[in-house]
Amino acid sequence: MKKLRIGLIGYGFMGRAHSNAYRKVGNFFAVEHECVLQAVCARDAAKAQAFAARWGYRSVETDWRKLIARDDIDVVDICVPNNLHAEISIAAAKAGKMILCEKPLAMNGSEGKKMVAAVEKAKVPNMVWYNYRRIPAVTLAKQLIGEGRLGKIFHYRAKFLQDWTISADLPQGGTGLWRLDVKAAGSGVTGDLLAHCIDTALWLNGGIETVNAMTETFIKQRKHTLTGKVEKVGIDDACAFLARFNNGSLATFESTRYARGHKALYTFEINGEHASIFWDLHDLHRLQYFDHRDEGLVRGWRSIHVSDGDQPYMKHWWVPGLQIGYEHSFIHQVADFLKGIETGKPAGPTFRDALETQLVCDAVLASAKTDAWQKVKTLAK
Amino acid sequence: MKKLRIGLIGYGFMGRAHSNAYRKVGNFFAVEHECVLQAVCARDAAKAQAFAARWGYRSVETDWRKLIARDDIDVVDICVPNNLHAEISIAAAKAGKMILCEKPLAMNGSEGKKMVAAVEKAKVPNMVWYNYRRIPAVTLAKQLIGEGRLGKIFHYRAKFLQDWTISADLPQGGTGLWRLDVKAAGSGVTGDLLAHCIDTALWLNGGIETVNAMTETFIKQRKHTLTGKVEKVGIDDACAFLARFNNGSLATFESTRYARGHKALYTFEINGEHASIFWDLHDLHRLQYFDHRDEGLVRGWRSIHVSDGDQPYMKHWWVPGLQIGYEHSFIHQVADFLKGIETGKPAGPTFRDALETQLVCDAVLASAKTDAWQKVKTLAK
Amino acid sequence: MKKLRIGLIGYGFMGRAHSNAYRKVGNFFAVEHECVLQAVCARDAAKAQAFAARWGYRSVETDWRKLIARDDIDVVDICVPNNLHAEISIAAAKAGKMILCEKPLAMNGSEGKKMVAAVEKAKVPNMVWYNYRRIPAVTLAKQLIGEGRLGKIFHYRAKFLQDWTISADLPQGGTGLWRLDVKAAGSGVTGDLLAHCIDTALWLNGGIETVNAMTETFIKQRKHTLTGKVEKVGIDDACAFLARFNNGSLATFESTRYARGHKALYTFEINGEHASIFWDLHDLHRLQYFDHRDEGLVRGWRSIHVSDGDQPYMKHWWVPGLQIGYEHSFIHQVADFLKGIETGKPAGPTFRDALETQLVCDAVLASAKTDAWQKVKTLAK
Amino acid sequence: MKKLRIGLIGYGFMGRAHSNAYRKVGNFFAVEHECVLQAVCARDAAKAQAFAARWGYRSVETDWRKLIARDDIDVVDICVPNNLHAEISIAAAKAGKMILCEKPLAMNGSEGKKMVAAVEKAKVPNMVWYNYRRIPAVTLAKQLIGEGRLGKIFHYRAKFLQDWTISADLPQGGTGLWRLDVKAAGSGVTGDLLAHCIDTALWLNGGIETVNAMTETFIKQRKHTLTGKVEKVGIDDACAFLARFNNGSLATFESTRYARGHKALYTFEINGEHASIFWDLHDLHRLQYFDHRDEGLVRGWRSIHVSDGDQPYMKHWWVPGLQIGYEHSFIHQVADFLKGIETGKPAGPTFRDALETQLVCDAVLASAKTDAWQKVKTLAK
Repeated sequence: MKKLRIGLIGYGFMGRAHSNAYRKVGNFFAVEHECVLQAVCARDAAKAQAFAARWGYRSVETDWRKLIARDDIDVVDICVPNNLHAEISIAAAKAGKMILCEKPLAMNGSEGKKMVAAVEKAKVPNMVWYNYRRIPAVTLAKQLIGEGRLGKIFHYRAKFLQDWTISADLPQGGTGLWRLDVKAAGSGVTGDLLAHCIDTALWLNGGIETVNAMTETFIKQRKHTLTGKVEKVGIDDACAFLARFNNGSLATFESTRYARGHKALYTFEINGEHASIFWDLHDLHRLQYFDHRDEGLVRGWRSIHVSDGDQPYMKHWWVPGLQIGYEHSFIHQVADFLKGIETGKPAGPTFRDALETQLVCDAVLASAKTDAWQKVKTLAK
Repeated sequence: MKKLRIGLIGYGFMGRAHSNAYRKVGNFFAVEHECVLQAVCARDAAKAQAFAARWGYRSVETDWRKLIARDDIDVVDICVPNNLHAEISIAAAKAGKMILCEKPLAMNGSEGKKMVAAVEKAKVPNMVWYNYRRIPAVTLAKQLIGEGRLGKIFHYRAKFLQDWTISADLPQGGTGLWRLDVKAAGSGVTGDLLAHCIDTALWLNGGIETVNAMTETFIKQRKHTLTGKVEKVGIDDACAFLARFNNGSLATFESTRYARGHKALYTFEINGEHASIFWDLHDLHRLQYFDHRDEGLVRGWRSIHVSDGDQPYMKHWWVPGLQIGYEHSFIHQVADFLKGIETGKPAGPTFRDALETQLVCDAVLASAKTDAWQKVKTLAK
Repeated sequence: MKKLRIGLIGYGFMGRAHSNAYRKVGNFFAVEHECVLQAVCARDAAKAQAFAARWGYRSVETDWRKLIARDDIDVVDICVPNNLHAEISIAAAKAGKMILCEKPLAMNGSEGKKMVAAVEKAKVPNMVWYNYRRIPAVTLAKQLIGEGRLGKIFHYRAKFLQDWTISADLPQGGTGLWRLDVKAAGSGVTGDLLAHCIDTALWLNGGIETVNAMTETFIKQRKHTLTGKVEKVGIDDACAFLARFNNGSLATFESTRYARGHKALYTFEINGEHASIFWDLHDLHRLQYFDHRDEGLVRGWRSIHVSDGDQPYMKHWWVPGLQIGYEHSFIHQVADFLKGIETGKPAGPTFRDALETQLVCDAVLASAKTDAWQKVKTLAK
Repeated sequence: MKKLRIGLIGYGFMGRAHSNAYRKVGNFFAVEHECVLQAVCARDAAKAQAFAARWGYRSVETDWRKLIARDDIDVVDICVPNNLHAEISIAAAKAGKMILCEKPLAMNGSEGKKMVAAVEKAKVPNMVWYNYRRIPAVTLAKQLIGEGRLGKIFHYRAKFLQDWTISADLPQGGTGLWRLDVKAAGSGVTGDLLAHCIDTALWLNGGIETVNAMTETFIKQRKHTLTGKVEKVGIDDACAFLARFNNGSLATFESTRYARGHKALYTFEINGEHASIFWDLHDLHRLQYFDHRDEGLVRGWRSIHVSDGDQPYMKHWWVPGLQIGYEHSFIHQVADFLKGIETGKPAGPTFRDALETQLVCDAVLASAKTDAWQKVKTLAK
């Protein structure tokens, strides 16, 4: 079995999710590569060591440049804050490494374009961790749409609602809180949460033409963990936008961290001429499906428990009725990435795909700033 | 328009529900009879008067015998405690009145048989108010089963759960509480709640052959409102039974007034070879339907919002998406009763139908007493 | 008992809903007035006659001016297309009639202002049939917000989704279809459906400051029933908008008649600092409530079955667990209107309240036309 | 780190679930032992070899006796059909191995007693894989009950519904189908599915006193995979029973493989004086909780999304809102088993605990056979 030696940079929430995926993929999927946990890299040597021990990484680095320079590393997996994605990616591409980068791709489209140029010039396999595409129910939605079951699409609506930053006492910046620090994150919910919604939307419903957004920062100042001072909050706490897709459909998108009662409620709905689909991250193993072609007397929304062997990815798991969870989306993504390098047909979203999402985010933020509709500067045309 | 002059005996919860039905049926259904609220009868003259004023009854009686003796009454509607059903029904039948009697038909099968004999001898139209048959979603269930969509039936399960008698301070007997008084009610949840479940079950799934029950009285003594003394509680607070239907299907039935969190949770589910059905009184406008013949990939329980014009009774009401409520089942029952006397094809459940339910109740109570399976003494064969 | 003689103009869907309310209110509510169905008015004499017979109206008119001129009419109830609201209301006000007008108030704010001026000059009781305020679950939401349970409000989102105009074969104009004819309706989903959402929102969450909308007409041409010709469709098939409320909260609103699978899915959600609320017209008897002050271990969205006697309006109906339906909102509105004239404290929404909704609709349509944020020209300040 | 060398017997569905648990536990839980996948044993050497390669087992055996005889094995994990549990367990106990045995413990109570005697005599840690106790929502239910939140318990009801054996073409016996073969399985749904329900029930609600059951075999004959002949089916396809617990509560239990539309619908509900709980395997990450002590106005069933760090086991996983799945219950069980051997306080269910479940199953089957109530022959008193 061929070995694929992973060098992981960062050991937080995503570092764990990815490590778990590398360790499990071979048990459940007939892939040709064995993922070897070669090295983990983090500035804090003790923490990196502890993480390596817990997960079985063979070595530790404290400087990502050294990791990239090692020739016993095939894949660089970037799980650090957004402001480091570009630099690391470009360096890794130059070093000829395959790159798996956490989302969002970059701080903005301009950074993203350089990253795409770098990986495409280096011809290295690359992928961004928009993992929700590979929740089986979401993949099933893609399949149903691909089969044309929905007919002409009229509406798309997506939300990603959380409630974890309502307290004004929460500081910004530092471990676990860099998402509140605009310098590390680039933006607030737009890059963190709406980016997921946009990635799925582009995948399911094609390109977005124009957007019109509003953002809000409810808590204007927070103590900064790194400086110890109360500083202006630079991120968007909430963002909602209207959009028009290339296919003529209308959309609403919304995200916030101030929606009391919702922990991670990512939902999307798509209404077509013949059928509609709804999905909800809080019950991620179900897909709601309505088909108008059903006989009128017994027509209704179907709650599909996506756990049968003929549904996406599910034959690799347990038996019908037994659900899998959030972490499995990462395992599926690794499985598909491996298959991609085995077949030469890259699994998405590639850096180029993720750049499209970035460009929508840019347009959204620009619209909020200008109070005006903005065209998305897509590369796709 | 022909007039049908109603004489209502009793003015409680059911008196209101029936009066509302008589008043509304002609506005929504093209029936040939006008229901005239001719007289209401109750022992307390002042209360009867007030009820008559509120509802538009033209006269008041305080003795049901006088009501029955009046020749300006066509229909006697019996809404008094169970221990009076037989006597009033039999007298009304002798007087040649049509009879609408609240459920359960009688205190027991033996009483019920006399009532059936009386109405059949008198050849008077008769019906028992098992109103749940005419919730549109339930009627739709009947239609789907009638069309053979479920195939061979394997399982039936029904529950009727309430929680209003958990407090030991609740007295037994008297206004609104006669259901706790075994002398007035005959039994507890068996006659009050399971009778509904059984009526629906016999209608949907045919005859029950044998039953095996357990009952419990959790609060052994309660103050009796009428005597003022603490007395032994004679009713069953809870009853559950196993059953076998003639068609070979197995069933579980359960009812209680000690299921915290459930106000009136009547549910039934029926599992057939090809399809299954589930219904729930707390969301009475929906029917859950699963059809195994649906394509595997998108198979799921359908939540049918029973509010379209092609679904039972709904063309008489509003527009799709707008739900009706509990009280409408009574209006439907009056509409069907009127249609029955217009066409000569009596609407069910007749006294004879309701006697079958009574005989199942008898077998259930006998089984609980004897701790043994009991055959149902059906008249149907 | 005092009599309130109703003159109804129009006999469609709303004519029935209102007639039912007048007939039932006295049976269930202790009001001081008896609603007398004095006259119904419609151009087609035969149909008006049939309607009068079905509902018990004592007389028929075919010219609304004659109805208004009669001195045996106390209340004029306007159930005709939107383009007639202003003329009839103003004439009825001049004739000193109380006025109940279907929603939306007018074709636009300018008409609406004249109507408000007319009823306020005439000092006649007036109300607009935004009935959803009086669905008990919605009234409960108002009560909870009024008690300050939600704390500072961050987000409001509302949708009203239907799917009945997807077919291109559906004509515009004529009986039952005037809602598709811009000359009769003024606008499409904005005035028909979003107006409901806006009325509720203003009531629950206060004034709206600015809006940013997009509209779409998916089917550009339809046969016009009245002219027989294929004509340009002038209404908005779909409309979505962003909004900012005076209280600093952000909102999204959306309505369409192209959302396959939804018949009349009006939903709203409001997220506050401490608690959140969600409601859905398809299960109108439930309110979803999340309270962050609940102990963390057992915190969750509560599904409140609004059928207990201590919940708004419910003590007038049946017993806990038994739901009421859509039509009851109209009965509640009549009961409150009667109480308003009995106490001198007018029940809302008055014409003035409804004008605020109209002004939001105007801003929405102007925004969609100009592709720019629009300030709402509220009278409230 | 201490090593615990696992010898797995059997490589089917459960073999995979357990192997996954051993591999993952150390990544997520701070345990003192490393689970080493030392050997897997199966009669078919090629299949065992493939399984070992896939999961990383270091060696392979084809005779379980040899596996037990090895002194490099600390734990014997038994994942073979029920008819082999006793023999292997007793041999393993004699060899001084720790034993983890798939459920149900044995073919019947008599076998089970010998197994308990063997492990207790050998003083080896032992556990049975009733994994559902460690679904976090179920563990939370246990915690809430343990804190006395429900008050006196009135009712318990459990169901385990499947639909995978409806086709008469399905053979009995052989790989994946031994559950239909009475010689391998001992019973049908009683030992396979109801045993889960009973284990949970005894854990949550204490001992069962008496039971009254009915069973049915809908398909009387099936082709036997091993003999190739059509043979009588010896298992119960469906089983329902009434029960009384020691604490005075009443219960209904039901299981079937003929409930169209349900793949693995294990549900239980428990109604107490103050509060009620409901859980459902198809949405295993949620617990429904109703607390009557909530203020009446906003009382309702709470849907608890069990994914917060203060809820059982969840701090070991991801972040609030992100659900885990079925397989995690096994990981939790291994974590608890390890903690048990570390602390000397054995994690349940031990063989002795599982024997109680077996004795209820025995009483259930005896009751169905005799058509009479049966006392449970519990060891607990």
